[in-house]
Amino acid sequence: MSDAVQNNLTNTRLAWIAGVGASAGLGAALARRFAREGLSVVVTGRSRERLDTVVAEIQRAGGQALALPGDVTSESDLAAIARQLAERGTLEVAIFNAAGATRAPTLDLSAEQFEAAWRVTTLGGFLFARAALPPLLVAGRGSLLFTGATASLRGRPPFAAFASAKAGLRSLTQSLAREFGPQNIHVAHVVVDGGIDGERLRTSAPQRAAERGPDGLLNPDEIADSYWHLHQQGRSAWSQEIDLRPFNESF
Amino acid sequence: MSDAVQNNLTNTRLAWIAGVGASAGLGAALARRFAREGLSVVVTGRSRERLDTVVAEIQRAGGQALALPGDVTSESDLAAIARQLAERGTLEVAIFNAAGATRAPTLDLSAEQFEAAWRVTTLGGFLFARAALPPLLVAGRGSLLFTGATASLRGRPPFAAFASAKAGLRSLTQSLAREFGPQNIHVAHVVVDGGIDGERLRTSAPQRAAERGPDGLLNPDEIADSYWHLHQQGRSAWSQEIDLRPFNESF
Amino acid sequence: MSDAVQNNLTNTRLAWIAGVGASAGLGAALARRFAREGLSVVVTGRSRERLDTVVAEIQRAGGQALALPGDVTSESDLAAIARQLAERGTLEVAIFNAAGATRAPTLDLSAEQFEAAWRVTTLGGFLFARAALPPLLVAGRGSLLFTGATASLRGRPPFAAFASAKAGLRSLTQSLAREFGPQNIHVAHVVVDGGIDGERLRTSAPQRAAERGPDGLLNPDEIADSYWHLHQQGRSAWSQEIDLRPFNESF
Amino acid sequence: MSDAVQNNLTNTRLAWIAGVGASAGLGAALARRFAREGLSVVVTGRSRERLDTVVAEIQRAGGQALALPGDVTSESDLAAIARQLAERGTLEVAIFNAAGATRAPTLDLSAEQFEAAWRVTTLGGFLFARAALPPLLVAGRGSLLFTGATASLRGRPPFAAFASAKAGLRSLTQSLAREFGPQNIHVAHVVVDGGIDGERLRTSAPQRAAERGPDGLLNPDEIADSYWHLHQQGRSAWSQEIDLRPFNESF
Repeated sequence: MSDAVQNNLTNTRLAWIAGVGASAGLGAALARRFAREGLSVVVTGRSRERLDTVVAEIQRAGGQALALPGDVTSESDLAAIARQLAERGTLEVAIFNAAGATRAPTLDLSAEQFEAAWRVTTLGGFLFARAALPPLLVAGRGSLLFTGATASLRGRPPFAAFASAKAGLRSLTQSLAREFGPQNIHVAHVVVDGGIDGERLRTSAPQRAAERGPDGLLNPDEIADSYWHLHQQGRSAWSQEIDLRPFNESF
Repeated sequence: MSDAVQNNLTNTRLAWIAGVGASAGLGAALARRFAREGLSVVVTGRSRERLDTVVAEIQRAGGQALALPGDVTSESDLAAIARQLAERGTLEVAIFNAAGATRAPTLDLSAEQFEAAWRVTTLGGFLFARAALPPLLVAGRGSLLFTGATASLRGRPPFAAFASAKAGLRSLTQSLAREFGPQNIHVAHVVVDGGIDGERLRTSAPQRAAERGPDGLLNPDEIADSYWHLHQQGRSAWSQEIDLRPFNESF
Repeated sequence: MSDAVQNNLTNTRLAWIAGVGASAGLGAALARRFAREGLSVVVTGRSRERLDTVVAEIQRAGGQALALPGDVTSESDLAAIARQLAERGTLEVAIFNAAGATRAPTLDLSAEQFEAAWRVTTLGGFLFARAALPPLLVAGRGSLLFTGATASLRGRPPFAAFASAKAGLRSLTQSLAREFGPQNIHVAHVVVDGGIDGERLRTSAPQRAAERGPDGLLNPDEIADSYWHLHQQGRSAWSQEIDLRPFNESF
Repeated sequence: MSDAVQNNLTNTRLAWIAGVGASAGLGAALARRFAREGLSVVVTGRSRERLDTVVAEIQRAGGQALALPGDVTSESDLAAIARQLAERGTLEVAIFNAAGATRAPTLDLSAEQFEAAWRVTTLGGFLFARAALPPLLVAGRGSLLFTGATASLRGRPPFAAFASAKAGLRSLTQSLAREFGPQNIHVAHVVVDGGIDGERLRTSAPQRAAERGPDGLLNPDEIADSYWHLHQQGRSAWSQEIDLRPFNESF
C-alpha cells in the first residue's frame, strides 16, 4: 500500500469509500459525489490502477481524493488504511460498497464459492464497520452506509450465495444501527433494486441495458445523490433503509 | 370552500399537501419546505383557520401558498380542489399526510371507530391519489408521497384500527408505485417511526417529549427534508419506501 | 336467518366458519375438515342455499353442521349468530374466510368499489373477531384464524383495492395476536399464495387451472389440513403466520 | 465416525437431523418425533455421547435411530454420512438444526467469532443442503427443513454475528425453496421466536425460564409437532416459512 503522490489532502473532512472499482461504477460515483460536496475522499478497492483513475478524475474536477488500495476481507489492510485516515483528518462518512457475486444453480456452487461471496460481502462489511466505527465514534458523529441489493431481501436462484451474503450484511446493518445510532452514528442500508448502469452491466449484458430504455438502469450518479442525502439527514429523522429502483422497474 | 384573498399565485409549479393542521405539525412543515423551494403550495385540511395560519406564515417568509380547505374523505371536496389546481398551474407534487388514529383495546373499538380510522387514513389516501393522479399524468411527471407510521408495518394494541388503516394505505402506495412509476409518477411511502415533535405530542404527552431528549422526537422540518429529497430523486433511482426515526429511537 | 331443520347438534364443541360459499371452495373444505375432527361446524355465508349444500355434505359424511347465514359486514347478523352459538355449546375455533375482490386499474376503481372490498375483507374480519372473541375468552381458550392471500403482503395492480383490504386484515390479526395470545386465544393468519383449486378459478380461469398441472393450484383440503394443525398447536409454540403455496408456484 | 453397534435399522424410510445435542434440546425432540412416526432417524452432532443418549432414548421407546456424529462445517463429514444414509434406505426428510451463537457488543466481536457463527449456522446449512438434496432428488420427493430464530428476521445487538448468520441461512432457504420446490422437495424455514425450554436455557438462564411461567418457553416437543406437520403437508399447499412462539411472548 503506498500513496506517495497523492498525500496532499488539505481538507480534513474525510469520506472513506470501500468497494471502488471502475470509473463507471457505483463506488466511483459515490466518490465523485462526496468530493463534489467538499470532502476529501479516500477510495479503497483491490485495483490500484482503477483507484488511480477515479482519483485523477476527481482531482481534475477540483476535488480531493486519495487512493488507498486494500482488500476488505483483510483486517490488516483495513487497519492500515484506518491509521492513515487518522493522520489525515476526521472521518465523517464511511461507505461499504463491496460485494462478491456468484451466479450458479445452488448444487453447482462449491463451498469455496459460497464462502467467497460471504467473505467479501458480509465479513467485509463487518470488518469495514469495525475499522470505521472507532474514528467515527471519536468524532462523535458521522455516517456508515452500506450498499444492498434486491437479493438482500430475498433469496432466489441462481443467486443463492450472493443473496445469503447480502441478507447477512443487511442484518448486520440493523444491529449496527441499533447499537450505534444512540451514539450519534447514522447507519443506513441502501437496497439497490435493479441493474446499475455501470461498467459491469454494460459489458456483461449490453442487450439488457439497451432493452431497459432511458433511465431503465440505475444511474450511479443518481444513486449517489441518495447516499449524500442520507449523510445530510438531521439526526431526529434518520433513515435506516431506503430502496432505489428505476421508474419502470418491475418489482 | 373559498379563497378570495389568496388567489394571487404567480408561480404555476404547484405542490398540493393534504392533511395540514397545526403550524407545528408535519403537514405545515412540508408546506413550508416545498414553498421554500419555490413551489406554490396548496394546503388542504379541515380547519380553514389552521390553514390560514400556515399560509400566512409561508407568505411572510416570501413563499406562495393557498388554503383550500376540504375533507379527504369527500370525493367532491377533492374534485373541487383539483379543479382549482388545474386553473392555477401544473401539479408537480402531491402529498397525503392525513390520518385518523384511535387508541383503544380492540374489543372496545366500535365499528364506527374502526371505520373512521380507515376512512380518513386509507380511503382518504385512495381518493387523494385519484384526484391528484390525473393532473400529474397530464403533466407527464411528478411525485405522489404518503406519510406512513410505525403502525404501517405491524399491528399492535391499542392501535388495531390505526395500524390496520395504515397497513392498507401502505399497500395502496405499492400498487400505485407499480402502476404509475412506469408512467413517470414517483409514488413513495415514508414510514415515520417515532413520535413527531409537533403540536399533538407536545400537548398530549409533554412528559414523553421531554424524556426523549434533544432530537429524540422527529423534527417535522427534518422529516420534510426527506420528502423534498424524494421529490428530487432522479427517476433512474427512485425510492418507494424509506423509514425515518430519531437517532436514539429503540426499534 | 333461520335454522329450523338443523338445530340438532349433539356435539357442543363448536367451530364457526365465516365466508363459506361453494362446496368446492376453501370455506367448505375448512368446514368438512373440522367436522371430520369431531367438532360441530357452524357455517356462515350470504347464500343459504350454498350453506345448506355444505351442511348436507358434512351430515352425509357423519359430521355435524349447521348453516347460520349472515353478512360479515353486519354487526347484527354476527351478533345473532354468536347468540345462537352460545346456546349450542362452546366455541373452540373461529375462522374468517370472507373476502371481497375487485380487479381493475386503480383509477378505474370507484370509491364504492374500494370501500366494498374493505368492508367485506377488513371490517368483516374486525366484526367477526369482535363477535367470536367474547365466547372464546369465556371458554378460556381457542383459535381465531384468518385467511390471507399473496395480496396481503404486497399491493399490485390491478388488485389495489383487494390488496389494501387484505393488508389491513393482516395488520388486524397481528394486533389481535398480541392482545389475545396472552389470554390463551391463538390468533393466526394464513397467507394463501397462489390460486385455489376451487369453483371460482375453475369457472373464471379454466385455462390457468389446466396450465398449472397436477397440484399446481392449492387444493382446499390440503389448505384445511394446515388450519387444523394451527388449531392443534400447543400454546408454547403457536404460529402467528404461515404461508401456503403449490410446490411449483413461482414466488 | 463409527456406528458399529447401531446399524440395525430395519425401516428404510430415513430422517436425517443435524444439530442434535442434549436430550432436552430441539434436535433430540425432532428425532423423537420423527421416530415416533415410524421413520428411522439418523442424528448428527458433534458429541457422540449426546447422540448415543438420544438414540438410546428413542430405541427404548420402540423407535429406530442411529448416531452418525459429524461436524456440519465439514464437507467430508457430511459426505460420509450421506453415503451411509444411501446404504441404509431412502432419505425422506432432512432437518438442519445447528447454529452458532455469540453474544457480544459488535465492536468486541473478533473476526473469528463473526466467522465462526456464520460457519456453523449458514455455511453448515449450505453444506447440509448440498449433502441432503441429491438423495432427496433421487427419491423424487421429501422435505428439507431449517431452524430459524427471531434473529433470522432482524439484527440486534448483542447478537450481530448470530443474526447476520441466521439471516443468511433464511435467505438460503428461500433460494432452495424456489429452486427445488418444483422438483418436489419441500424446503421450509421455521422461525423459533422465543426461548426454547431446553437444556441451554434452563442451565444458562434459569431465572428467565422461571419468570416466563408455564408454556412461556417453547416446548421442544410442541415445536417438533410443527416440523412433522410441515413434512406432512400436501404439495399443493406447502409452507415456506412459519413462525412459532409462546402464547404469552411479546413480539
